[in-house]
Amino acid sequence: MMATDAAGLPATPCVVVDRGRLEANLRRVQAIADTNGVRLRPHVKTHKSVRIAGMQVAGGAVGITAAKPGEALVFVEAGIRSVTVAYPVVDPDRVDRLLAAGRGRGAELRFIADHPDGVAALAAAARRHGVSLPVLMKVDVGLHRIGVDPDGPAALDVAGRIDADPDLAFAGLIAHAGHAYGASGPSAAADVAEAERLCLLGVADRLARAGLRVDEISVGSTPTVLAQRDFTGLTEIRPGNYVFLDLTAVRLGVATLDDVALSVHATVVGCTDRHAIVDAGSKVLSSDLGPHGTTGVSGFGRAFPAGGAFSGDGLVVEKLSEEHGFVRLAGAPIARGTRLAIVPNHSCVVANLATELVVADGQGAWPVDARACVR
Amino acid sequence: MMATDAAGLPATPCVVVDRGRLEANLRRVQAIADTNGVRLRPHVKTHKSVRIAGMQVAGGAVGITAAKPGEALVFVEAGIRSVTVAYPVVDPDRVDRLLAAGRGRGAELRFIADHPDGVAALAAAARRHGVSLPVLMKVDVGLHRIGVDPDGPAALDVAGRIDADPDLAFAGLIAHAGHAYGASGPSAAADVAEAERLCLLGVADRLARAGLRVDEISVGSTPTVLAQRDFTGLTEIRPGNYVFLDLTAVRLGVATLDDVALSVHATVVGCTDRHAIVDAGSKVLSSDLGPHGTTGVSGFGRAFPAGGAFSGDGLVVEKLSEEHGFVRLAGAPIARGTRLAIVPNHSCVVANLATELVVADGQGAWPVDARACVR
Repeated sequence: MMATDAAGLPATPCVVVDRGRLEANLRRVQAIADTNGVRLRPHVKTHKSVRIAGMQVAGGAVGITAAKPGEALVFVEAGIRSVTVAYPVVDPDRVDRLLAAGRGRGAELRFIADHPDGVAALAAAARRHGVSLPVLMKVDVGLHRIGVDPDGPAALDVAGRIDADPDLAFAGLIAHAGHAYGASGPSAAADVAEAERLCLLGVADRLARAGLRVDEISVGSTPTVLAQRDFTGLTEIRPGNYVFLDLTAVRLGVATLDDVALSVHATVVGCTDRHAIVDAGSKVLSSDLGPHGTTGVSGFGRAFPAGGAFSGDGLVVEKLSEEHGFVRLAGAPIARGTRLAIVPNHSCVVANLATELVVADGQGAWPVDARACVR
Repeated sequence: MMATDAAGLPATPCVVVDRGRLEANLRRVQAIADTNGVRLRPHVKTHKSVRIAGMQVAGGAVGITAAKPGEALVFVEAGIRSVTVAYPVVDPDRVDRLLAAGRGRGAELRFIADHPDGVAALAAAARRHGVSLPVLMKVDVGLHRIGVDPDGPAALDVAGRIDADPDLAFAGLIAHAGHAYGASGPSAAADVAEAERLCLLGVADRLARAGLRVDEISVGSTPTVLAQRDFTGLTEIRPGNYVFLDLTAVRLGVATLDDVALSVHATVVGCTDRHAIVDAGSKVLSSDLGPHGTTGVSGFGRAFPAGGAFSGDGLVVEKLSEEHGFVRLAGAPIARGTRLAIVPNHSCVVANLATELVVADGQGAWPVDARACVR
């Protein structure tokens, strides 16, 4: 076992989760869902932790969202009863193990498609396993990554193909307004959410007129969900980052530093005229400036004294080597051995770099169960 | 087992190593060491692979360099006989397990120090384990991260303290000219190497005049070693990245695309007007622009058809989500299911994100044994 410090926390660098803040964040978003009459199906890519997924389901979530089949598999094998794999499938082989695990455990597995090739791949997988698979059509609401054009002919075509396939069930619409991460503030993020809502209601209308029933309209990113004014017509939200939050959410104005539940603890191992050098570099903090290729951000995190509140602006982590962070000094040098807590730009990639999440209440650590499950 | 493609390679995304190129890179740098009469002690932070470390030692390396005690431990336990831990130690507890393992296996462990606090921490650890520890003094040759000022009083003070301590042995000087990654080309990188060499010879001279014998003068970064004109007076080189290389080395002009031994294989899962969307995002490629906070680089990698040479400029990976890469189209759309090979900006952080390195000769995969060993 590694040495621990006075507070019982392990040697640095380590990823520390404040349990009180985590639980408050879980309650906050479950309350948003309950108040607005939508189901919560959180994205587990942020924490990749079976323990936290269990807390989400116990709190009212109807299941989870996973990014890749391999990530979903970890949670199905851990007993989660309903999983949406929010990733286009182009090869039936890729969902083989997941479908076998789901059938063995009686877990519901939902998929997405945005192209006839994807529909065909899912249909082939369904036939191979003798199951009927619920499939949501992914709609591009502005991120321009994956999804059918909401205004083009593909929307009717793809939904129609899903509906017509004897081995698939058309389950509704799904979207991710990741471009909300580029919003200038909560009001702009709320505008993105409202545009997404209206867009999806429009697609549902077109499909209804073509005789296709849309049971589910699923949206979700943390900025939109936290800023959203009107959920009318939506049935499900899928935020992920809200469990931990990070500097990105603070910059967007949808959270404060006091809400952030994840930080990286690091120790000062050197000090120059300009920088305190800490033992957390890009192999712990990542080089992410934020989600979806965020640009224009200065620094890789903000450093605060460990063990206290994140008060003030903290010190900017100005530069990263692989195993060193350069914390820009604002005044006096910092003594070697000083423990700092660094709030990262993007907690989702930080958790994926860690083997475990250390719980700041002294209750030990939770493994990052689905770490590196990128297939 | 995951499905494999026609070439027997596993499902994407995966990190693929070209064994022929890897072996050529190992030979190239061993030859530089042999020709110039210096020892090679490669940094394993790049590959974190016991298998590749074994190839390096079999090829003539005198041992390895590791970044953190936990990384060194993996290699000592795997049988590597001599390891330099090139990281300042501020707490004796942090080297406890490593020293115990080294003593048990008869492995030589060498450390660095750049401050009286670090000397004291190492001395305390040595006393606790009843061993004498060889310690190199780290000199700041321009990266301004860790190391004593070569021109200031600290150089004599720290070396003197190491030498005077009954439990430590002053082993010489060590430096890392990481600022060579900011050089404009091979000639500028060679200038950095020459300045480093002269700087260290100057410090050695000052120490000699004070009665301190300098047995080792150890340098090493891949750009300096590949560009260096004169090794006179140096005794050891410690490059790491040379095993794989990457776009950074190509941009610096110290390697060509044909030398790069590591790529990320990814599959096209969607295509917009501007981008082919692939299944490798920041959780596979990292968001690194290059080592030590490189800036001014455009994109997160270059994509080529998988299975062939990396010919031409490839397509720029313009943006990353966590599980999606946005490959900028240069002409026609790319069909879903197409397999691409992406050369990353920085192979060291890519290997650390993977669980295994797939060997392109069909000989299976090598585990990334010291993955996430950041303590």
